[in-house]
Amino acid sequence: MQTYTYTRSQDLFERAAKVIPCGIYGHFSPAPLVPPTSYPFFAARAQGSHFFDVDGNEFIDYMCAYGPMVLGYNDPVVDEAMIKQLHEGNTMTAPAPVMVDLAEYLVDLVPVADWAFFAKNGGDMTNFATMIARAATGRAKIVAIEGGYHGVAAWMQGSGHYGVVDEDTRNMIRIPWNDAAAFERALAENPGQIAGFIATPYHHPTFVDSALPADGYWQRIEQLCRAQGVVLISDDVRCGFRIDLRGSHEHFGFKPDLVCFCKAIGNGHPISALVGSAALKDDAAKVFHTGSYWCQAAPMAAALACLKELVRIDSPRVTQAFGTKLCDGLTAVAESHGYHLKVTGMRSMPFLRLTDDESGMLHQRFCSECTRRGAYFTSHHNWFISTAHTDDDLTRTLEIADEAFKALEGGR
Amino acid sequence: MQTYTYTRSQDLFERAAKVIPCGIYGHFSPAPLVPPTSYPFFAARAQGSHFFDVDGNEFIDYMCAYGPMVLGYNDPVVDEAMIKQLHEGNTMTAPAPVMVDLAEYLVDLVPVADWAFFAKNGGDMTNFATMIARAATGRAKIVAIEGGYHGVAAWMQGSGHYGVVDEDTRNMIRIPWNDAAAFERALAENPGQIAGFIATPYHHPTFVDSALPADGYWQRIEQLCRAQGVVLISDDVRCGFRIDLRGSHEHFGFKPDLVCFCKAIGNGHPISALVGSAALKDDAAKVFHTGSYWCQAAPMAAALACLKELVRIDSPRVTQAFGTKLCDGLTAVAESHGYHLKVTGMRSMPFLRLTDDESGMLHQRFCSECTRRGAYFTSHHNWFISTAHTDDDLTRTLEIADEAFKALEGGR
Repeated sequence: MQTYTYTRSQDLFERAAKVIPCGIYGHFSPAPLVPPTSYPFFAARAQGSHFFDVDGNEFIDYMCAYGPMVLGYNDPVVDEAMIKQLHEGNTMTAPAPVMVDLAEYLVDLVPVADWAFFAKNGGDMTNFATMIARAATGRAKIVAIEGGYHGVAAWMQGSGHYGVVDEDTRNMIRIPWNDAAAFERALAENPGQIAGFIATPYHHPTFVDSALPADGYWQRIEQLCRAQGVVLISDDVRCGFRIDLRGSHEHFGFKPDLVCFCKAIGNGHPISALVGSAALKDDAAKVFHTGSYWCQAAPMAAALACLKELVRIDSPRVTQAFGTKLCDGLTAVAESHGYHLKVTGMRSMPFLRLTDDESGMLHQRFCSECTRRGAYFTSHHNWFISTAHTDDDLTRTLEIADEAFKALEGGR
Repeated sequence: MQTYTYTRSQDLFERAAKVIPCGIYGHFSPAPLVPPTSYPFFAARAQGSHFFDVDGNEFIDYMCAYGPMVLGYNDPVVDEAMIKQLHEGNTMTAPAPVMVDLAEYLVDLVPVADWAFFAKNGGDMTNFATMIARAATGRAKIVAIEGGYHGVAAWMQGSGHYGVVDEDTRNMIRIPWNDAAAFERALAENPGQIAGFIATPYHHPTFVDSALPADGYWQRIEQLCRAQGVVLISDDVRCGFRIDLRGSHEHFGFKPDLVCFCKAIGNGHPISALVGSAALKDDAAKVFHTGSYWCQAAPMAAALACLKELVRIDSPRVTQAFGTKLCDGLTAVAESHGYHLKVTGMRSMPFLRLTDDESGMLHQRFCSECTRRGAYFTSHHNWFISTAHTDDDLTRTLEIADEAFKALEGGR
């Protein structure tokens, strides 16, 4: 079995490293892709559930641009709506009517939403949400989960990260996931000081297993927030529209005051959204929040078309079903080779890990052997399923996994 | 003379106000547009230097989307490059080669740049710049200018703004513009504690006159930064590519360590950039900074095409020339009616103010009378000139100004 080579990716990365810090930055950095020689670094084009790297290699893409792609690359319905709006007017001196249409659609779609606000990054919305919580309560402290990710602003990153100073995180209280008693203690220890509680609908850190909420966890958190006047913020940036189109909190049975969306909302077109309750609308209006492109019309048209397609297709059902088949299939292939592949998190964005080697190196090798054969798997991050993944993708992926396990066993 | 009416804008704004905090948010909010009945709220389409509102009214646009539009709306060269990349691949699991091309181009274009980094908002870059300054120096404090605008993160906004808590601004030292002695005092009072100095190349706050740097100001600031190991950050988000294509600091004769770009870099396609010196590249690599769409390829293709067009046209010369003719013309029209129109700032992004009434209400009325006749003028914000503004635009604008002054005099 011939495996992929990446000459052009590597040449391009050498050029990139000269003019870009890290060569490729952030969550796209090849640093966690181990060994890097198994991975492409630059994508030339993409279509449906596949992307093609600059060396001409084709991949079934299980990262979906780390979340934004949900309907398949170059979805014709979304892109047509986007280009139509682009030709009419995009970034203009005033917003286009589609901003109102999109806000109305989100307010209809998401039961807890009485209003919507649009920006570019998920972090724009988690930032705005905490500022609204502070404006609404007159309090400063924010409770978040240890290892929970909400973006890259200094307050979101922990102490000890480069560029973060003490004052940035002084109002952050980090508690363990699934530990409502810890929240109760934080409330007791900081009476009348906690403005907001922010967490993802379930815990999906990198490098370790995902963890769904324990029975009654969210209900207890919600109850404590209500009792103490704490603003409850659901960071649905990563899960949003892959679990429940009404907001992932609906699946887990709680009602946040504010919900942050990004990624899958526009199938890759750059837009994020915050939705919130009527009680917080005036506070949201008072907090000054804006950006150069936040009224850009084309991504709003893309998001409106994307959401309608997601509803039409009932995308969470589709991606959950495919993810379940994929995870079950991979688990069976692993078992047939004597390995145990553990699956955690929702099946539309599963985290997988071979447990036969606690160092994680075996799992890294498995993912890299799959990738160099055309099934793009990262070992450190949850994967993402789109509605464009096909039964042929599944069949080929399971064949690739079988070949990869043989290669792990020394067969190549 | 018939003036515009805005029935559909007002209906749409009523719908917007139900589902969006403020109806229209941030710097697009109609709140500073006085009286609001003179202004359109929603744009249906745009072309070249003009936009058309939802009521079918046509405007010569002197706000250029508050900066991003610099080559004219729907520039065919930029949009063709963008759409070509869109069809190949946009937001993918790996960046496209155009990221490297764009970084190389910026490094060639901007003499102080040894590397480049891309994001979505101007504020992403001012945030990253201060984090790099802190990582590089191991210090916490940032010096900025009173009334200087660098985005909406809590640390960028002053104390007293909604949602901002004390700790957010505890490391910020605000000094007056054009006061190098104040910077010297700040350095003396905070020995070894100042990580960075951030300012715009010239001072362009809202609601008040712009102020160019005094002779020797930037040179003294640069000298103090070098002597004390302070990272010098130029926030070129608003001025960038309208004063000098090599960075506005070149025009004013200083060399920053980091330069933040946004707005005009992509003619409305959503991208921002930070460029920096070789000495800070490793620190930039250590600070974790990323976003869902920061490797999005289509706006990078747009930015590359936009920058090449700006170079080809020598856009700062063009926009400065048009801005000078516009400001001179308007000043003369004002004078012919017995008014004094004061112009401050660079002519490619001038701030204008009728000084005959210190309350500003006369100037508000003048701007609104021009807007309702088809020359879109804000009274509180600097305007922006594009390379698409024509001599016909100029002629018509001066006619409109003449009519507006007559209306002010009660003629209508």
